[in-house]
Amino acid sequence: MKWLAFLLATGATWSGALAFTVPASRQADKHVPIFVTTIPPGYRDWKLISVAHEEGSLNSLGAVLGNDVAIKAYREAKLPFPDGAIIAALHWSHVSSEENNKVFGRSQSFVAGPSTNVQFMIKDAKKYATTGGWGFAHFNKDGTPGEEALLKTCSPCHAKASRDFVFTLYAPSY
Amino acid sequence: MKWLAFLLATGATWSGALAFTVPASRQADKHVPIFVTTIPPGYRDWKLISVAHEEGSLNSLGAVLGNDVAIKAYREAKLPFPDGAIIAALHWSHVSSEENNKVFGRSQSFVAGPSTNVQFMIKDAKKYATTGGWGFAHFNKDGTPGEEALLKTCSPCHAKASRDFVFTLYAPSY
Repeated sequence: MKWLAFLLATGATWSGALAFTVPASRQADKHVPIFVTTIPPGYRDWKLISVAHEEGSLNSLGAVLGNDVAIKAYREAKLPFPDGAIIAALHWSHVSSEENNKVFGRSQSFVAGPSTNVQFMIKDAKKYATTGGWGFAHFNKDGTPGEEALLKTCSPCHAKASRDFVFTLYAPSY
Repeated sequence: MKWLAFLLATGATWSGALAFTVPASRQADKHVPIFVTTIPPGYRDWKLISVAHEEGSLNSLGAVLGNDVAIKAYREAKLPFPDGAIIAALHWSHVSSEENNKVFGRSQSFVAGPSTNVQFMIKDAKKYATTGGWGFAHFNKDGTPGEEALLKTCSPCHAKASRDFVFTLYAPSY
């Protein structure tokens, strides 16, 4: 089967994320952001969209996974993403592999070290209308949600992506 | 759910692979290797084991995926891998992302470029007894199998892995 290497992306999910979910009790106050505090269940089993490597202070290796709705949209090059699509970005420290390098006979191999964070984009055009139709979420390595200052940077950054707030392209295969 | 970051691995699948599948008609001649020429169907949908980055001439980003048998063995820390386990290593060129770097304001973002190859390890302790119980396979970006000279390097290299011929550790998550 041939997968198109097309057009969608989440590469800069690193910038953090904010989810403007407003429960009924607080709908009068649209200025109070309520962060997503629940990690979507089963995300570690989702299908692969692509991989990524960030240098600099992030120093990460990442995997971008999608739930079935997101994967279908990617493969059909469907934009904007439909409601229900969730994209997960799993990040680990980019660490040298002593075992691999020993076998290779040179230092060239880097692997996923400890988890650094996991981030999500959840599509609901109505619920998250103020942030491009996406709810953003960030969870630290201990499972706690990211700080508000970090989370507030996500939506403005993803708005710069040319494909419905998503940076990551679907990695080609054959 | 907490996944253990444990003990298995395929990091050096890059070294290529040889599958000694000997059809009934040729079983008398054990010295004639028959390469695996069929890509396991559906591998692009398999679950994520980990990610990898190779510098140097390989210059790759990789994703290591597993079929259900392999994933179960990883999560249960079961060694050796049971028959039926298949581990896939998908490799892409490690390319700078102009779009991401523009948003970040600095050159730090690398993503999966064109496919370079896909490799497999197929566990069948009896069938592949001469290569550690694993059949190795390599497919070039055009889908053709790797050359014999390349494929012959796989088994001796993977024999150096400390966990049943497998280098790649299961990437932790939470």
